[in-house]
Amino acid sequence: MIHVVGFGMGPQHVTPEAATALRSCDYVIAAAKRAEDPLLEVRRAICAEYGVELVAVPDPERDRVSTGSTTEAAGYDRAVRDWHAARVAAYREAIAARPGTVGFLVWGDPALYDSTIRVVEQLGVDFDVIPGISAPQLLAARHRIVLHEVGRPVHVTTARRLPAAVQAGQRNIVVMLGSEPVSDDLGDWRIWYGANLGAPGEQLLAGLVGEVDLTGARARARARDGWVMDVSLLRAP
Amino acid sequence: MIHVVGFGMGPQHVTPEAATALRSCDYVIAAAKRAEDPLLEVRRAICAEYGVELVAVPDPERDRVSTGSTTEAAGYDRAVRDWHAARVAAYREAIAARPGTVGFLVWGDPALYDSTIRVVEQLGVDFDVIPGISAPQLLAARHRIVLHEVGRPVHVTTARRLPAAVQAGQRNIVVMLGSEPVSDDLGDWRIWYGANLGAPGEQLLAGLVGEVDLTGARARARARDGWVMDVSLLRAP
Repeated sequence: MIHVVGFGMGPQHVTPEAATALRSCDYVIAAAKRAEDPLLEVRRAICAEYGVELVAVPDPERDRVSTGSTTEAAGYDRAVRDWHAARVAAYREAIAARPGTVGFLVWGDPALYDSTIRVVEQLGVDFDVIPGISAPQLLAARHRIVLHEVGRPVHVTTARRLPAAVQAGQRNIVVMLGSEPVSDDLGDWRIWYGANLGAPGEQLLAGLVGEVDLTGARARARARDGWVMDVSLLRAP
Repeated sequence: MIHVVGFGMGPQHVTPEAATALRSCDYVIAAAKRAEDPLLEVRRAICAEYGVELVAVPDPERDRVSTGSTTEAAGYDRAVRDWHAARVAAYREAIAARPGTVGFLVWGDPALYDSTIRVVEQLGVDFDVIPGISAPQLLAARHRIVLHEVGRPVHVTTARRLPAAVQAGQRNIVVMLGSEPVSDDLGDWRIWYGANLGAPGEQLLAGLVGEVDLTGARARARARDGWVMDVSLLRAP
């Protein structure tokens, strides 16, 4: 049995049902991106709190060249697929070595821009999923806003696909997997921005896209935490 | 000080930061829709667990005629605005009668199709917001799915606006505030459906829109719990 457990942005978001699932695990597998992964430290703290051992599995290198630079969808999909296959193999090996109930700790929510479910369902083991607080939710909470106008839709997409969403007429857009700067075309849109939400280097900005200093906020987050992950809500004027 | 606290679908989703906020409250205000509101019972159980008193404030009647039947956006917005104004007045009175730190318990997440933040910000009192697990997240967890295809967007909207989203070319749509049956035009779309998620009458369905029995699931949920709230993910073929 595998429990895929969303832990939100840290121990402050571990729900009682997530805690119960973690306590029932013989061990928790975490992908370790490098020797001193700060996100691994958060997982380690959670495992310590709920008395479960953490087993770090080195994360296969994702082909950054092909996923990072191409705007061609097929190439991107292929790179992601290869990366998933490599993760499946690594996790299968880790699990075979240690029978028992296994947890996978997922930053945020397993249902939003996370590959754990897609990887785990290829392991051929029964699993369940525990939801966790996602970054857009913490963004909204910090800014004390609702993600959409009354009764209106909210469109959630990636920085890569933001231009397509704007072109298609979306006027209220959550942007995840950021890093590409917001286009100058959106200078008069309103933005609510967060970097490293829940971490010591958390940065919040709100204002007109053309007037906020996203580059500075990203730099401050990285300087403090050694990494940066950001999320925005953009709203048309 | 006011804490707006999302509690997800029940006590199993109350995060440690939500628990801390609740324990710091002198009392919690809950809108009581009628004498025996089952959702009020969930709030009562949470308050008991965290040792805070619950004060039920009768919820002003929402003008169902104008919000329920018109498809004209301005009329809908006006009815919602009037309803918010009536709630602001009711809460202001309740708070004036009892000074102290006040909590507002929100089903799901205050950032998604909930009016509490918009009401509270009109009270003129400092407040913060604690995010909670939302219905689409629990839907995804129960079905063990990611809400979108790899790297693609997810569009979150209301049942009322579903036809507009489909017409605009959205192919992966979370539908909230349901009750209108899904159109026959979408018979070959895939649906992941949940009613009364987290409650005893929880119903799950997945399949082609044209082949699942949403009416039956809604009836079973209502028969068990006395109320029904549903959420769907729709994906184009």
